[in-house]
Amino acid sequence: MKTNLPIVTLLTDFGTEDGYVGAIKGILLRHQPDLQIVDITHNIEAYNIRQAAFAIVNYAYYYPKGTIHIVVVDPGVGSKRKGLIIKAASQYFIGPDNGVFSFLFQEENFKAFEIDESMVSSTISPTFHGRDVFAPAALKLCEGYTPDQFCHPASNISAFYDSYTKISDREFTLKVIHIDHFGNLVLNFKMTDWEAIGSPQDIKTQIKHCFIYGIKQTFSEVEEGQILVIWDSSGFLQISQFMGDASRLLHMSVGDEVRLLIE
Amino acid sequence: MKTNLPIVTLLTDFGTEDGYVGAIKGILLRHQPDLQIVDITHNIEAYNIRQAAFAIVNYAYYYPKGTIHIVVVDPGVGSKRKGLIIKAASQYFIGPDNGVFSFLFQEENFKAFEIDESMVSSTISPTFHGRDVFAPAALKLCEGYTPDQFCHPASNISAFYDSYTKISDREFTLKVIHIDHFGNLVLNFKMTDWEAIGSPQDIKTQIKHCFIYGIKQTFSEVEEGQILVIWDSSGFLQISQFMGDASRLLHMSVGDEVRLLIE
Amino acid sequence: MKTNLPIVTLLTDFGTEDGYVGAIKGILLRHQPDLQIVDITHNIEAYNIRQAAFAIVNYAYYYPKGTIHIVVVDPGVGSKRKGLIIKAASQYFIGPDNGVFSFLFQEENFKAFEIDESMVSSTISPTFHGRDVFAPAALKLCEGYTPDQFCHPASNISAFYDSYTKISDREFTLKVIHIDHFGNLVLNFKMTDWEAIGSPQDIKTQIKHCFIYGIKQTFSEVEEGQILVIWDSSGFLQISQFMGDASRLLHMSVGDEVRLLIE
Repeated sequence: MKTNLPIVTLLTDFGTEDGYVGAIKGILLRHQPDLQIVDITHNIEAYNIRQAAFAIVNYAYYYPKGTIHIVVVDPGVGSKRKGLIIKAASQYFIGPDNGVFSFLFQEENFKAFEIDESMVSSTISPTFHGRDVFAPAALKLCEGYTPDQFCHPASNISAFYDSYTKISDREFTLKVIHIDHFGNLVLNFKMTDWEAIGSPQDIKTQIKHCFIYGIKQTFSEVEEGQILVIWDSSGFLQISQFMGDASRLLHMSVGDEVRLLIE
Repeated sequence: MKTNLPIVTLLTDFGTEDGYVGAIKGILLRHQPDLQIVDITHNIEAYNIRQAAFAIVNYAYYYPKGTIHIVVVDPGVGSKRKGLIIKAASQYFIGPDNGVFSFLFQEENFKAFEIDESMVSSTISPTFHGRDVFAPAALKLCEGYTPDQFCHPASNISAFYDSYTKISDREFTLKVIHIDHFGNLVLNFKMTDWEAIGSPQDIKTQIKHCFIYGIKQTFSEVEEGQILVIWDSSGFLQISQFMGDASRLLHMSVGDEVRLLIE
Repeated sequence: MKTNLPIVTLLTDFGTEDGYVGAIKGILLRHQPDLQIVDITHNIEAYNIRQAAFAIVNYAYYYPKGTIHIVVVDPGVGSKRKGLIIKAASQYFIGPDNGVFSFLFQEENFKAFEIDESMVSSTISPTFHGRDVFAPAALKLCEGYTPDQFCHPASNISAFYDSYTKISDREFTLKVIHIDHFGNLVLNFKMTDWEAIGSPQDIKTQIKHCFIYGIKQTFSEVEEGQILVIWDSSGFLQISQFMGDASRLLHMSVGDEVRLLIE
């Protein structure tokens, strides 16, 4: 029965039209026909590790303990990069060692394992580790194996995280780390960062030559079409246009900087 | 076991690449790991309420009684717009009060409830009611609660429906209300409308300066590349090009008008 | 319980935004609420039968015996083209007779049946056989019927397969039969073809005025950005750019030719 099996989620940059994702699902279901497989997305931009790394933050924490998240954005497939299992937040994350798990580093009890490919699969295509390494590793976990039974301890895991820059007690440089489907600009400044500097109420955000005053609680505090600064649904500071696309309006891209000023 | 749970479907304009849809699925599965969750689409054009409203007609009626359809095309999230549960056609529809349920109004036994947000969730992000209000409301229904146990009766529900215009007994103005993936032009004229005027056989449809004669039974009555008028798979009159894209060929958009003439 | 039901997969060119795929899922779940339905893709280019035919090769063989694959890329819907059930590789494939099952012909124990529409459905829309013929046929198989109980034997099945051309014992003309999401160029030359000519090691592939020497075992044998020839994950010869897009770099399209030379 399904309830005894962990849930398996899939995030890739494969698109779906070639049938590659279909192959991964097939491998999983051939061994576990009752598995609850959840499509997160297959529309990560090809090779965009940062977009994938950020997406993980938005969904992973809502799943039951023991959930297995397969993440395949893997430009280095067939090179020497390691295949990983990460244990964090009581869940498993399986994928390549290329920085895609960067945001999980901040988790307590973060543990990394390097998959021993020879212990999960006998034939491994040089181009498709999603099917031949990561899915079989997920099946091992489904069968009740623990990572140390088919993995080595892993160190020197690839990661990136662009912290905000403190210019002074009253001035910070933030960066756009993600632009979502609606054009919201997500900044590298979390509610916990804000609390650490004393939860200042009188702040303004400078975007190019514009200033946005305060942090709003709800969109309805501004008029349709106005720009506001608000906490996003995962606790990052975000610049939005109410019922619009802030990224297009402000001509901002990932990596662009804004200034946060305390008055 | 799954059979005791209703099916939950998801329709959004979120895309999948940010992980927002993954979060909704996580919330649902954390409480009901065996839930049958069905992706309808996450590719509704951002904020396009009318496209979503029409899509609902194409799938909702095929599901078992008691199915819960979550619909999140919600440009007004964080404003004062209500969160709704609609009971119609023996199914539940959960989403914002912005017209997205317009086509369900015509259902017998249509009932609308306003979700009492405080009764479904303790923390509600101002930007993500799909995760924090609508998914928890769906879980309440899964647990066996009825809408009146966590909702208020709702009135003055937003709706639009562009009826066709009767010019005379023999002339009607119809509007393109939807253009589908294949370029078919769906008109605001149902088979029941046609029956109400006596099921006339000798009709012609005027599109700009072209006339299309009759309503075909099957595509095979015309040659490849020809334009025809036919009933679509949900009972709306539709202008199609056999093995082609009528919208592109005829340069027609949503909102454009055609004339229906009875000879 | 789910384990007694076969898995049903869906591949279409419908997109998802109109709710048509949602209707097919609804029909299936109304009769079998516990069915494991697997989305392969709904993003096949509209009417692109060849893209769909090739995708099938990439996923179908990984599913459990008895799996039912519904394939709806059906430009001729409503014409006289047959509706088929193919039995191949211990699985079922349901869809239109238009060549979409071409790659399955090479399977041993290939059997084709023509669906008797009157035995699966009482009302059939001329525009939507996915919902009204193919899904009901899949349900018949789920209920334990065998194809001969609601189908006729079928012959003269549509198929295409572009074999490579032998110019001499040492020269072959190959064709690009598929370009995948990452720009890899898949050629009509399988590992079995290569073995049949004696598994020559000293080969070169001529693309326009460039020569690529040998067949690589892994991507890591070349530098980032370099072109290589490698076996793809389904056993076809493939031209790739490591961490890049070979199709864009080489300006190659489906149908373009390359030369394979044995030295």
